[in-house]
Amino acid sequence: MSAAGSDCLFCRIAVGEIPAKIVHESENVLAFRDINPQAPTHVLVIPREHYPHAAALAAGRPEVVAELVVAAGVVAEQEGIAESGYRLLFNTGEQAGQTVFHAHLHVLGGEWLGGLVGGELR
Amino acid sequence: MSAAGSDCLFCRIAVGEIPAKIVHESENVLAFRDINPQAPTHVLVIPREHYPHAAALAAGRPEVVAELVVAAGVVAEQEGIAESGYRLLFNTGEQAGQTVFHAHLHVLGGEWLGGLVGGELR
Repeated sequence: MSAAGSDCLFCRIAVGEIPAKIVHESENVLAFRDINPQAPTHVLVIPREHYPHAAALAAGRPEVVAELVVAAGVVAEQEGIAESGYRLLFNTGEQAGQTVFHAHLHVLGGEWLGGLVGGELR
Repeated sequence: MSAAGSDCLFCRIAVGEIPAKIVHESENVLAFRDINPQAPTHVLVIPREHYPHAAALAAGRPEVVAELVVAAGVVAEQEGIAESGYRLLFNTGEQAGQTVFHAHLHVLGGEWLGGLVGGELR
């Protein structure tokens, strides 16, 4: 569960303890801008409830996985990238580069995004 | 719907008209190896039913979005990348590099995957 006083950065954003540039929210889901954007649009969509990664969320709250993807589509429309194209991405674990262990769906767009792996960190 | 005689490559794979290296399947979902792998493990997880992209699938069959992520987790276990890490990725539209317009979730792993965008196409 999201809880005040949690050590988890995204739980603290979810309860408003740490500020974020929120672009969309619903009962179960929150979307906010990545503080280190890797593309012109870079938004993170998270479940309010704490799960460490996408597989755990899919096992525990499968309906919320779909809500993340629906919310990402809403964000893409708002950002004007629904037609030009966008990437939705979950990283799980070290080799994928996951740094916050609260499941989060990256929404990336606004330019040609290139290959699926191997990009430079910006 | 997946249908014999479809023009859609992944619908044809789903009904067995075109062969693929299938690694996992269930009633609604099929997982097979990408023919042009971008990482040591590169598997595509698709809904058997035709939806052009992730947002359309999430709108039409939200429960199947979670099934894709669960299946991706099973594949990651099978491939031995669940612990080392893996990336799940939907591309939608031209700037993201979507080339087959049947929703598909990329499962990538087996090495350090680098940044989220900007990679070289292999």
